[in-house]
Amino acid sequence: MLTDSRSLPYDPSALRALIRKGQWTGPTAGLASGRVQANVVVLPQEQAFDFLLFCQRNPKPCPLLEVLEPGRTEAALSARGSDIRTDVPRYRVYRSGVLTGEREDLREIWRPDLVTFLIGCSFSFEAALLVAGIPLRHIDQGKNVSMYVTSISTVPVGQFAGPIVVSMRPIPQSMVVRAVQVTSRYPGVHGAPLHIGSPQAIGIHDLARPDYGDPIEVKEGETPVFWACGVTPQAVAVQSKPPLMITHSPGHMFITDLRDEDMAVI
Amino acid sequence: MLTDSRSLPYDPSALRALIRKGQWTGPTAGLASGRVQANVVVLPQEQAFDFLLFCQRNPKPCPLLEVLEPGRTEAALSARGSDIRTDVPRYRVYRSGVLTGEREDLREIWRPDLVTFLIGCSFSFEAALLVAGIPLRHIDQGKNVSMYVTSISTVPVGQFAGPIVVSMRPIPQSMVVRAVQVTSRYPGVHGAPLHIGSPQAIGIHDLARPDYGDPIEVKEGETPVFWACGVTPQAVAVQSKPPLMITHSPGHMFITDLRDEDMAVI
Repeated sequence: MLTDSRSLPYDPSALRALIRKGQWTGPTAGLASGRVQANVVVLPQEQAFDFLLFCQRNPKPCPLLEVLEPGRTEAALSARGSDIRTDVPRYRVYRSGVLTGEREDLREIWRPDLVTFLIGCSFSFEAALLVAGIPLRHIDQGKNVSMYVTSISTVPVGQFAGPIVVSMRPIPQSMVVRAVQVTSRYPGVHGAPLHIGSPQAIGIHDLARPDYGDPIEVKEGETPVFWACGVTPQAVAVQSKPPLMITHSPGHMFITDLRDEDMAVI
Repeated sequence: MLTDSRSLPYDPSALRALIRKGQWTGPTAGLASGRVQANVVVLPQEQAFDFLLFCQRNPKPCPLLEVLEPGRTEAALSARGSDIRTDVPRYRVYRSGVLTGEREDLREIWRPDLVTFLIGCSFSFEAALLVAGIPLRHIDQGKNVSMYVTSISTVPVGQFAGPIVVSMRPIPQSMVVRAVQVTSRYPGVHGAPLHIGSPQAIGIHDLARPDYGDPIEVKEGETPVFWACGVTPQAVAVQSKPPLMITHSPGHMFITDLRDEDMAVI
């Protein structure tokens, strides 16, 4: 068991192999720098068409990186040689919408009817913001980004419905336009902001009390900027109470071979 | 029955109403200027998950505008009040991969298990190219664009597999960069070119003999530029020989309420 992330390899395939052997069970932020990390949602085939359509209708909160056919365990397009049952450091298992436990390996509970959805995560566009010289306070402070349930609805499909969850980053006012431009290049990892400014306008009443993550201060001269968040599809799926649903544990993502820059449309 | 397209309304909803009554059965190029027109593929639910996943994996040839749940006939998100059984001027019906006929109305053969896929079409990005001052010879000459089967494979899903079909437009060499920039803004309607220059490099041996559409001359000082084409998903679906498949008839598209500009990511 390794405990210091500085001793981990940069190569995403080597990193997945270590995770597979149970040698890394911690969070993945900062690992395999420059590679795309993915939110994971696993559902039975029975729910898969509706959930796939839900993601298609809600590309900002649910940007699909790859979907594996029923029973498939290798993300052949985004992470060659991977095994989705073992290559995430920590999983969460929900039954009928209730979290029943965490585990580090899915092999014992895997079924041939399970469909895996890999969904883009904000780590990629945050790297692009940092490269553009836009500071990100939650990273500077080693905290989780603030996340809020909004009054904006997703476009529903069957049982899948609910509000969009957003993440908030305080951006210096002179850099807000640049932040829109930089993240617009990456629609596959949430893309342009959903909202700029007034939290009330999207149903957020107290920035200091996020629904998920840590409170992050917005200082004088900064504007709160809100991006659609990958927590949305998980929250929506759990609310629909599927018989079985497996996700990554927060912060413990699936590391792909894709480069952040592969996600840029222009 | 109307025969002169100049007498048709600009409003997409009014136009669909005329088509629904059988008063316009002709091609839709140039109609409802500025609105997005869609390729139509209708498949039984049995094939729908795989085809939806096929489109997700192949967004350049198969950019999804909207997918209707099984049995749904209104494209509620892109064309409020529409009826997919009546609002396309002319349909093609395939059974086990064989074209069995054309019809102007699907009400008699509609089934509750049919899933409708609306797929972006190049009319939208062509409008953007023209606005940018980039000439399009097939439009100047009143012809169909040249289309070719390439040696580039789509990413397969189950029974859905096959080569990408591209459309070709001769672009003056000084405008090729601008053509890339302009169309990059529209990933929802095929987006940036797939290839620039040498036809041989993508398996096209004779530009003068397109697989679909009309031959369009490439003149001295021009570069052939190739975009992924919406014929691809139809060709792939037909090859897979589903028991029933319905499409629009070439050039007779479904007219949505969406504006071309709604398709722009930046």
